[in-house]
Amino acid sequence: MFRPPWRLFVEWISSGEACFREVVEFIASSSVGGQAVDVVVLSGLGKALVMDGKVQSSLYDEYWYHEALVHPAMLLHPCPCRVLVVGGGEGATLREVLRHPTVSRAVMVDIEPSMIEMAERLLAEWHQGSFRHAYVDVVAADGRGFVEAVRPGCFDVVILDLVDPLEGGPAVYLYTLEFYRAVYRALSGNGVVVTQATSPVLHPRVFAAIYHTMARVFPHVAAYTVYMRSYNGLWGFVIASKTEDPSCLMGRVDELLRERGVRGLRFYDDETHRWMFSLPRPVRRVLEEYRVVSTDKEPVSIPF
Amino acid sequence: MFRPPWRLFVEWISSGEACFREVVEFIASSSVGGQAVDVVVLSGLGKALVMDGKVQSSLYDEYWYHEALVHPAMLLHPCPCRVLVVGGGEGATLREVLRHPTVSRAVMVDIEPSMIEMAERLLAEWHQGSFRHAYVDVVAADGRGFVEAVRPGCFDVVILDLVDPLEGGPAVYLYTLEFYRAVYRALSGNGVVVTQATSPVLHPRVFAAIYHTMARVFPHVAAYTVYMRSYNGLWGFVIASKTEDPSCLMGRVDELLRERGVRGLRFYDDETHRWMFSLPRPVRRVLEEYRVVSTDKEPVSIPF
Amino acid sequence: MFRPPWRLFVEWISSGEACFREVVEFIASSSVGGQAVDVVVLSGLGKALVMDGKVQSSLYDEYWYHEALVHPAMLLHPCPCRVLVVGGGEGATLREVLRHPTVSRAVMVDIEPSMIEMAERLLAEWHQGSFRHAYVDVVAADGRGFVEAVRPGCFDVVILDLVDPLEGGPAVYLYTLEFYRAVYRALSGNGVVVTQATSPVLHPRVFAAIYHTMARVFPHVAAYTVYMRSYNGLWGFVIASKTEDPSCLMGRVDELLRERGVRGLRFYDDETHRWMFSLPRPVRRVLEEYRVVSTDKEPVSIPF
Amino acid sequence: MFRPPWRLFVEWISSGEACFREVVEFIASSSVGGQAVDVVVLSGLGKALVMDGKVQSSLYDEYWYHEALVHPAMLLHPCPCRVLVVGGGEGATLREVLRHPTVSRAVMVDIEPSMIEMAERLLAEWHQGSFRHAYVDVVAADGRGFVEAVRPGCFDVVILDLVDPLEGGPAVYLYTLEFYRAVYRALSGNGVVVTQATSPVLHPRVFAAIYHTMARVFPHVAAYTVYMRSYNGLWGFVIASKTEDPSCLMGRVDELLRERGVRGLRFYDDETHRWMFSLPRPVRRVLEEYRVVSTDKEPVSIPF
Repeated sequence: MFRPPWRLFVEWISSGEACFREVVEFIASSSVGGQAVDVVVLSGLGKALVMDGKVQSSLYDEYWYHEALVHPAMLLHPCPCRVLVVGGGEGATLREVLRHPTVSRAVMVDIEPSMIEMAERLLAEWHQGSFRHAYVDVVAADGRGFVEAVRPGCFDVVILDLVDPLEGGPAVYLYTLEFYRAVYRALSGNGVVVTQATSPVLHPRVFAAIYHTMARVFPHVAAYTVYMRSYNGLWGFVIASKTEDPSCLMGRVDELLRERGVRGLRFYDDETHRWMFSLPRPVRRVLEEYRVVSTDKEPVSIPF
Repeated sequence: MFRPPWRLFVEWISSGEACFREVVEFIASSSVGGQAVDVVVLSGLGKALVMDGKVQSSLYDEYWYHEALVHPAMLLHPCPCRVLVVGGGEGATLREVLRHPTVSRAVMVDIEPSMIEMAERLLAEWHQGSFRHAYVDVVAADGRGFVEAVRPGCFDVVILDLVDPLEGGPAVYLYTLEFYRAVYRALSGNGVVVTQATSPVLHPRVFAAIYHTMARVFPHVAAYTVYMRSYNGLWGFVIASKTEDPSCLMGRVDELLRERGVRGLRFYDDETHRWMFSLPRPVRRVLEEYRVVSTDKEPVSIPF
Repeated sequence: MFRPPWRLFVEWISSGEACFREVVEFIASSSVGGQAVDVVVLSGLGKALVMDGKVQSSLYDEYWYHEALVHPAMLLHPCPCRVLVVGGGEGATLREVLRHPTVSRAVMVDIEPSMIEMAERLLAEWHQGSFRHAYVDVVAADGRGFVEAVRPGCFDVVILDLVDPLEGGPAVYLYTLEFYRAVYRALSGNGVVVTQATSPVLHPRVFAAIYHTMARVFPHVAAYTVYMRSYNGLWGFVIASKTEDPSCLMGRVDELLRERGVRGLRFYDDETHRWMFSLPRPVRRVLEEYRVVSTDKEPVSIPF
Repeated sequence: MFRPPWRLFVEWISSGEACFREVVEFIASSSVGGQAVDVVVLSGLGKALVMDGKVQSSLYDEYWYHEALVHPAMLLHPCPCRVLVVGGGEGATLREVLRHPTVSRAVMVDIEPSMIEMAERLLAEWHQGSFRHAYVDVVAADGRGFVEAVRPGCFDVVILDLVDPLEGGPAVYLYTLEFYRAVYRALSGNGVVVTQATSPVLHPRVFAAIYHTMARVFPHVAAYTVYMRSYNGLWGFVIASKTEDPSCLMGRVDELLRERGVRGLRFYDDETHRWMFSLPRPVRRVLEEYRVVSTDKEPVSIPF
């Protein structure tokens, strides 16, 4: 029977499109760096982190997202030891990185120490203690500045777990040509980078721009997608490597995960990888249509 | 800049989850068989057919849906001549069937003649004249009764383009074991059937039940999915054959389409097929978890 | 039992406040002078005229509004013969004016002939044939220009049945000092004018400005209010006279209506008049707090 | 400029009508006696107490409500000393009672001690310390049982500050004939009772039933109304006395408040009283149309 919902979180996609979910329980509400941050239990998604009205991740499918973000990049590198995570405040990206026994050091850079403090206290299902792991350094700094300042070649894998490049928002300059050049410099010889890349359906121009911008810097680039219920649609990622073609992973994921001793996955495997890396034709068309490059001078962003 | 939307269509997923879209233009509004039928232009989707508040299809991605529904089944049959479409009031399923030069007869059975009359008048972008094609017969009848009454073996492919099996709704008995047995009987030696199968994410139990029910009747069955923006998520299909394993199509789609002279596709091709037929692990888990069979006596349906 | 509504009209009061009502039936939808005009049946209100998402009037309480607008002004004049209605496209204001047997001529000026044509066709419950009454002249013209151009003293009562003075909208200059001066000039010796005056609760500054602006021009002015469900709150009116103090009507309404032979009222009578003309203290406070005057140079308007 | 709101509280009036307001700030959220209780800052209303999605009162107009509820009843009694408040968890009803210097004892009965504890902590703007006033006794008990058990004639004024009689809810039996008889018994010789009476516009049958049920018990009864923005419309009250006709207050409110030394009012005065006690004709019609009496056996309630 239908009960009328009355505490709603509305996620606007545009002026004329939105999804709303009932708040089953309020856990905490605060303000971090000028953004409203809510930890709530949402109908259909379960416990969720919401920033300025955007669901950042929920227990329903955070593991879809975090496994999809982390493991292809880790497997594409022959032996990932030193990993940099930019963003990723919930700690779940770190959690996935630490599943790889090759890792000896994981640095997480997030601009908001209070966000990490909040995650540590309220989002244990996400981080599962990762922040305090012996190999982990958490650095409160601007990701762009950090990457530009590090010693060349000091990371094997860089994982960009960022908020969307909203117009005027804090993340616009973490998706530009100049930034990806700094990432290239920071990566070691077989270095791999991966970034979330917004939605090919809702923001096709931005998704394509991220792909084409990375393709200007790295010889091997691939876009892939995952359906994310929490994000109301198909979600995009772009992976790039200095030396390896991402297509080499097709059909080898189960074997590689076994070889490397990666345990506890619930989402990523061979067939899931094939799903993620097979792009439906309309998404491939988006990549062909919008051949834009995002630069510091003319950065591409989501309007609204 | 954000303009406040004021004419909204809300699509409820549950008591606590919904999406809404602004109505950019009203084209027509009527009542067909007790259901409210609206033809409107919706923000984000464009022109759309909406029945009792559920988007049936929109110009944004109707071709994703209709190509995904029709072509795998047609290609899986060695030479599809006689095709039965149950439902499919918009005429787009017929349109896709008619792209196959092997077809010599296409029968469409829909319980609502007024729906077809409306589609013919208002949804030309969908049917593109298919209703009046020389090979097409449109029959106003109950799909279940029609299938049970036809001569055995008289169709090569049966395409079930139905509304969801909503509790108490008209389609519940078009998803049961007894119905699939009647379909089996109606199919010729290499016969293939395909059905839309609701959402593995929003209605996992129903999706799985359709798969397992068909698997009781047909030796070869496969579930596949397509992300549909119009349906607010991942959408499911189940295909079954008397003789062919659907996995045989992997990697052969472009070649088969060329060989058979199928033209004008915008969605379906080899890579899209691979995307559709590679199931992400949580969807495979759904198929394992809910091993239910829908029968006339205990039909599975979407509550709400 | 609760059924989830899915065709909604949302009326925004501000960025953070809105009411929505289910569309029970669509009757017609068109565009008049750049505005979206819908005739619909709304849950709770019944048949309604909606312009750009704002309910203009509904069968639930259009007679509250139109009787409240027309009869106090008509009774305040000793013998209203010649009446001017500016706006009032539905024809219900005319309908109420024509209840007064003293009336020998009623001129209605509306800038949109297509609006009147639509009303005549679709809003018979409102106008009840008034547009075609022998004493009625319907003039398609700009109200401001019309009032400025007429012969001085040619109307006994002027009724301003206008849309709200939305910023940048068509009605802003029908609420200014200069316009009220033109109205004064157009009125005969005992001339009376009345205007709708937006909401004292939602737009207190605009409501007060209308009162104070008319008080600059007319010696006798009174504000009054009516609760209007269709407008989501308390609604304001301002009445002004060249010679009569509106307070003289208190306790005399039933008697005057009888004497003048006004029949068929469903809302207005002595006790209702007392309700309308007794202002709750917070509304009186609004009149004291916002002592603004709206002029052509600095017109007061509703932002949003 | 319009900012899209995303944290919304929706107040449903029926399946097809609702208002929503943006949550500007969450202050606290908890569960009291099975009801969700939120203290929030809402757009348009300011700080508000919300129970199960219904705004109970807000700083915007809580003083409209509480002054309207308390002072007519207090003035109608020649010398109110002992006052009983049933419900009224926020403490604002007590606050208004204590403005009367004649009061020597005020008992407040509320079924939820945790509600009062919460109010004391979070709603200081409402109670202003009333709970701890020397003359006040706060009793955690069921109002019905309490009134039935007290010594006859032990209260001069009874104020029923209750939640609506929602079907199946806790307050249905605080609006019945049997309950009003118990109230009559509990009142002294000139005893006066007042109750909130739901909305004559949204729940006309319930409003009328409360009036006619009290009229069966008390010789003098009057209904009155106040527009309440927080309650999305016109709100009703019913006052009854053993000996005084409420109409005797008309025109004497300012004088009586002065004589009795009641200070600090912001809403109630002579003209506001006239507004409240003058019923618009459609509200009088409601009282005539629905001549129902609510009894323990057949209680009247709000369905939904």
